[in-house]
Amino acid sequence: MPVHSRAPGRVLIFDTTLRDGEQSPGATMTLEEKIEIAALLDEMGVDIIEAGFPIASDGDFEAVSLIAGNTRNAIICGLARANENDISRCWEAVRSAARPRIHTFIGTSPIHRRYQVQLDRDQMAERIHDTVTFARNLCEDVQWSPMDATRTEEDYLCRVCEIAIGAGATTINIPDTVGYTVPRESAGIIAMLRERVPGMDAITLATHCHNDLGMATANALLAVEAGARQIECTVNGLGERAGNTALEEVVMALRVRNDVMPFTTGIDTRKIVNISRRVAAVSGFPVQYNKAIVGKNAFAHESGIHQDGMLKHSGTFEIMRPADVGLCESHLVMGKHSGRAALRNKLAELGYDLGDNQLNDVFVRFKSLADKKKEVFDDDLVALMQDTSASGLEYLRIEALQVTCGTVSPQAKAELALSIDRDVRTVTAHGDGPVDAAFNAVRALYDHDARLELYQVSAVTAGTDAQATVSVRLEENGLIATGQSSDTDTVVASTKAYLHALNRLRVRRYQQAGIQASGPAELS
Amino acid sequence: MPVHSRAPGRVLIFDTTLRDGEQSPGATMTLEEKIEIAALLDEMGVDIIEAGFPIASDGDFEAVSLIAGNTRNAIICGLARANENDISRCWEAVRSAARPRIHTFIGTSPIHRRYQVQLDRDQMAERIHDTVTFARNLCEDVQWSPMDATRTEEDYLCRVCEIAIGAGATTINIPDTVGYTVPRESAGIIAMLRERVPGMDAITLATHCHNDLGMATANALLAVEAGARQIECTVNGLGERAGNTALEEVVMALRVRNDVMPFTTGIDTRKIVNISRRVAAVSGFPVQYNKAIVGKNAFAHESGIHQDGMLKHSGTFEIMRPADVGLCESHLVMGKHSGRAALRNKLAELGYDLGDNQLNDVFVRFKSLADKKKEVFDDDLVALMQDTSASGLEYLRIEALQVTCGTVSPQAKAELALSIDRDVRTVTAHGDGPVDAAFNAVRALYDHDARLELYQVSAVTAGTDAQATVSVRLEENGLIATGQSSDTDTVVASTKAYLHALNRLRVRRYQQAGIQASGPAELS
Repeated sequence: MPVHSRAPGRVLIFDTTLRDGEQSPGATMTLEEKIEIAALLDEMGVDIIEAGFPIASDGDFEAVSLIAGNTRNAIICGLARANENDISRCWEAVRSAARPRIHTFIGTSPIHRRYQVQLDRDQMAERIHDTVTFARNLCEDVQWSPMDATRTEEDYLCRVCEIAIGAGATTINIPDTVGYTVPRESAGIIAMLRERVPGMDAITLATHCHNDLGMATANALLAVEAGARQIECTVNGLGERAGNTALEEVVMALRVRNDVMPFTTGIDTRKIVNISRRVAAVSGFPVQYNKAIVGKNAFAHESGIHQDGMLKHSGTFEIMRPADVGLCESHLVMGKHSGRAALRNKLAELGYDLGDNQLNDVFVRFKSLADKKKEVFDDDLVALMQDTSASGLEYLRIEALQVTCGTVSPQAKAELALSIDRDVRTVTAHGDGPVDAAFNAVRALYDHDARLELYQVSAVTAGTDAQATVSVRLEENGLIATGQSSDTDTVVASTKAYLHALNRLRVRRYQQAGIQASGPAELS
Repeated sequence: MPVHSRAPGRVLIFDTTLRDGEQSPGATMTLEEKIEIAALLDEMGVDIIEAGFPIASDGDFEAVSLIAGNTRNAIICGLARANENDISRCWEAVRSAARPRIHTFIGTSPIHRRYQVQLDRDQMAERIHDTVTFARNLCEDVQWSPMDATRTEEDYLCRVCEIAIGAGATTINIPDTVGYTVPRESAGIIAMLRERVPGMDAITLATHCHNDLGMATANALLAVEAGARQIECTVNGLGERAGNTALEEVVMALRVRNDVMPFTTGIDTRKIVNISRRVAAVSGFPVQYNKAIVGKNAFAHESGIHQDGMLKHSGTFEIMRPADVGLCESHLVMGKHSGRAALRNKLAELGYDLGDNQLNDVFVRFKSLADKKKEVFDDDLVALMQDTSASGLEYLRIEALQVTCGTVSPQAKAELALSIDRDVRTVTAHGDGPVDAAFNAVRALYDHDARLELYQVSAVTAGTDAQATVSVRLEENGLIATGQSSDTDTVVASTKAYLHALNRLRVRRYQQAGIQASGPAELS
């Protein structure tokens, strides 16, 4: 179906968490994580998923291909520079999608013309014509972006947009690449293009903003008011530097203020909080408490004056309720005596649909948690699920760990029995603090060069008996792997997360070498 | 000096981190913390510091009074509801300031008139006249806010603004209390008031936005373009729900885009990163990596395309450089062989000016850290300083702690020797995980009812031998105290932070009871 035949107030949501978001320094995701996030995006009603930049690496190509093959509803888009190699590779990756899109771009501002591609205006115009034509001959849905559009001369921008439309582009996206645009300018450029470029009304105009000055949301919405009908955005506003327009902010702003912005999206807003948490977990980018819509405090009211007002409120605007974004209170849900069916129902409510085997595994772990912890909250279950989904690879596994630390000895001590491909070895190691000691013990038993790039702890619920969720990111010769684990013992969670990352790194290493990591003996 | 006599493009920065920011659930600050933040705000050139809500509690009153007495340049403002008690108490608190301001407010929207104050339009108009007159008879600088202005009928808003001006208000602030305003509306309400209200040009119009839909920065800037000349904001956008306009965003946007927004502020932008870090630490509200201006990644570029562009860039807009906001790279600065003078210089660079005694204390701790840690980064020194400034109260202190945890025993074990007012007692306790065990040991030796409200770990630099900074927040019968500590051993840092919070809670308890906590024997 052509994406352009829709109601005039319908705004398409183009999510680029997996491409521009993942490009954020440190936010690299694994293949499995990308597939999971793509499935959640599709389920929540995102119209277009930009799944990656296929020519950038074999990993990116594989991710885009798998997502293209698995996605039910959304258009799957891949990014490509303005050359036939990039575009062909992109097409290879997206062609298996029910609704594929090629997104090709070139920097059109004077700086980009001169320094990055070394083309004069006429040469670039020709390149645009040729590459868009080439893409359109492969795929009937072609998006073209003049990168750094907000710093491109207006006349030239109009000229190249007209060329791209003539060559068959079905969407033109206007990126504010440096993120310095103010809302008036964001609206102005869209209005200008609509007025001056022939054929602009027959295609979809898109806006792509960055948040360097904190105005990405306003810039995107003002572009929509001026005629853009596609917003490019990411979950949690993930992305390079200060990130992209946050999906949750534009979607909820359009919903809550529909009285003054009569536009709709296809997003099931009740899925927002769950996907926000998953993106925060897999990217290792936590969301700050006072983040709009998805921050922990976004719906919390403290001062008496406001609380009082809230209770009585029924005002002029439609009110945004926690349930609208899928936020349930973190109340006591389950205890030691809860059964399998109750657990399955609760998990389904939280967005996890489990098969019987998976449920059995989770149930055992739930019972053990319920034994340790006085109260099991929703958030505890989410942490448990994250740990479960993380435990697929068991080449390296803790058999036993005992750590002693404190102020008495100058160094902490870790005694570790580590199962390496089912062969158990033991060691005693020391370090600065319990985590350093435990990681040193792993290093002593399993030789590797991976460098620890990120180590992060978050308590998922209140209290010191809360589960700690630990994220670890490792880098080895350009390969990156993240690991996560949750446990009421921070040191155990840290060590498991470290092993999880090492297991993944090993798989990626083999994948890169073109060899399957292991047979069934190694992959549990 | 009257605040209103200034260049037409000069925008006043009114910081309410200590009032509206501190009102955020969980962000409660101690007296010492408020005084420190106020000093930093003054130093960076904030025009008006809203230091608290004096009638809300004795603690708030004390904080406002002390800040009023200590501040050199900024106007010190206190908040007061529309009654003589509030206003008198506010005046008592701010009167010792070189430049005091009373800020009084009342909810003028139909919801507030009807439910919160139960006054009809005429009664409320009279109340506004009387209370602003009362305030102006005490203080020549009076700010008045119609709370929920953006949902107040335009005619009525004009009427009450005119009354407030007639009664002597020198600043009228327009709060978007629910945070649902879009930029066009934010500009519209300011333009409407300037057009319709007689006398509006003789006073300062202010804008106060909330970020519920992610548009607080754009709303504030558009209000300025429409004629507002005071922006109310907080560091890191701290505040209820999704917070307030972020100081760093509006200040940097006005600076970077001065070409299209020809306005200036008095802020020394090089102080931004330091104050952002301090506010994050004392409030326990971390800043997300992709936060505009002050996020860890705000200036980080990953993708090759962008990096290449950056190197060659000299474009149309003035570029925002890391140094403009006071961000230095976290490079290796100091090692074991660094001397006292080098440490003093480095700390001064980081914004800490130390007396000789303080320097000696820090130097000993620095040497011990340099022995443990391969590389000492700027951030390590900041953590060290935070721990030092936190160690003022030593009623409870660790003598010795040894903790054993792992997968071997079902529970972690903590052996603690705790100094309570210099009397050392010991205990062995168990718990779910090492931190729970250590905290249980403290509870066994020092009986208390405090409830743990927040427990948070952050690694301040990369690597597992990094220092962990732990923040703990305790609540006991309505009193709140936070504690922080840093150590390479997470469990030690956690226990010290817990004791730090208990020490502070004890002081606050005594303060509340009107008794000094202790003589010099207890306060080191």
